[in-house]
Amino acid sequence: MANDDIKQLWKVPEPTLRRLPWYLAFVKLMKTKGETFISSTQIAKEISVGPSQVAKDLSFVQITGKTRVGYEIDTLVNVLEEFLGFTVQHKAFLFGVGSLGAALLHDKGLDQYGLEIVAGFDIKPDVVGTTIRNIPVYHLSELPAWQKELGATIGILTVPVERAQEVTDWLIESGIKAVWNFTPFRIRIPKNIVVQNISMYAHLAVMFNRLNSSQK
Amino acid sequence: MANDDIKQLWKVPEPTLRRLPWYLAFVKLMKTKGETFISSTQIAKEISVGPSQVAKDLSFVQITGKTRVGYEIDTLVNVLEEFLGFTVQHKAFLFGVGSLGAALLHDKGLDQYGLEIVAGFDIKPDVVGTTIRNIPVYHLSELPAWQKELGATIGILTVPVERAQEVTDWLIESGIKAVWNFTPFRIRIPKNIVVQNISMYAHLAVMFNRLNSSQK
Repeated sequence: MANDDIKQLWKVPEPTLRRLPWYLAFVKLMKTKGETFISSTQIAKEISVGPSQVAKDLSFVQITGKTRVGYEIDTLVNVLEEFLGFTVQHKAFLFGVGSLGAALLHDKGLDQYGLEIVAGFDIKPDVVGTTIRNIPVYHLSELPAWQKELGATIGILTVPVERAQEVTDWLIESGIKAVWNFTPFRIRIPKNIVVQNISMYAHLAVMFNRLNSSQK
Repeated sequence: MANDDIKQLWKVPEPTLRRLPWYLAFVKLMKTKGETFISSTQIAKEISVGPSQVAKDLSFVQITGKTRVGYEIDTLVNVLEEFLGFTVQHKAFLFGVGSLGAALLHDKGLDQYGLEIVAGFDIKPDVVGTTIRNIPVYHLSELPAWQKELGATIGILTVPVERAQEVTDWLIESGIKAVWNFTPFRIRIPKNIVVQNISMYAHLAVMFNRLNSSQK
């Protein structure tokens, strides 16, 4: 990949990357309904984002719409899926096969979005050595060996809060480049590592607070 | 509850509600380490949030720190958990017992944060009538009857994208007041309904994009 392309990729703002999957979901839905063309105005209306924002977001993707009819839906779906990396499998390790970790191993839906969990890691004797949906669970001490063998780039963090930082440090040392943090703990990571925090507990806090305020 | 209290609760900004669970996780960690007092400066340093922001966020919670030593950890944990609603069970229904939905039913961790999933709903004959972790799965058509019986306030949405809006409309009609949306579809909801979008696919898009740009 040429240097210009690298710059191009980095230039995609995070908010754009977060909105593109919404557009994709909606456009795929229109496809199942038998539609063949869609305009950015239609997408905007449905998603509650301004039409100019939609057009700007889609300008990062290599696709050109036709005047009046808009984008060809088949092409837009393919181009978006490829652009978002959903068509290529990215290898991931999952750390902490507790209740949530095991649940994520059970979910086969992530495969369809380019995330392939190839192994789980834990230290508890009752889970180490087991498999969930054919995904093996190894002892955390075997991480360096399995990383050499499997070369995962993403680490899914579902360990207890008190182990979150320690395990993060260790998975980064083993060569993992991105951490998907499902714990409510704010992990510290070096600048070159990508981190995304799934804030399930933050969502609960917001919902409970708003529910309580409206009900009482 | 008096009118003033209602206003007080509504006044808590969403960013504050989203940060408080981070503080709670960190303070609980300090508690397990045997610490008894903690200052907002210590929390700020650990969480990478400004100290004045931490103090401001904590000012919404009914707790007063002592000069120099800060907050008593035991009290702070209790007060935060109560404030965030994690000590009271909120009844939830889960809609769509597919791969992700079933995984969420398997996860018993949410109970500890005040979310009690009391039933799942689906339309597929192979899941309707089954139970997961003692949680029964009913046919979607039985929603009104079970809602009358169980009175859930939260709906967890894990249906396929093409059913997302339809099921949302229906669960709101049945009296659900908050929707936790795990689909990549942007559902439309009335203003008085609370919605939180878990953007798993947005996170994947961001991680994949940043990984690709740094590796090539």
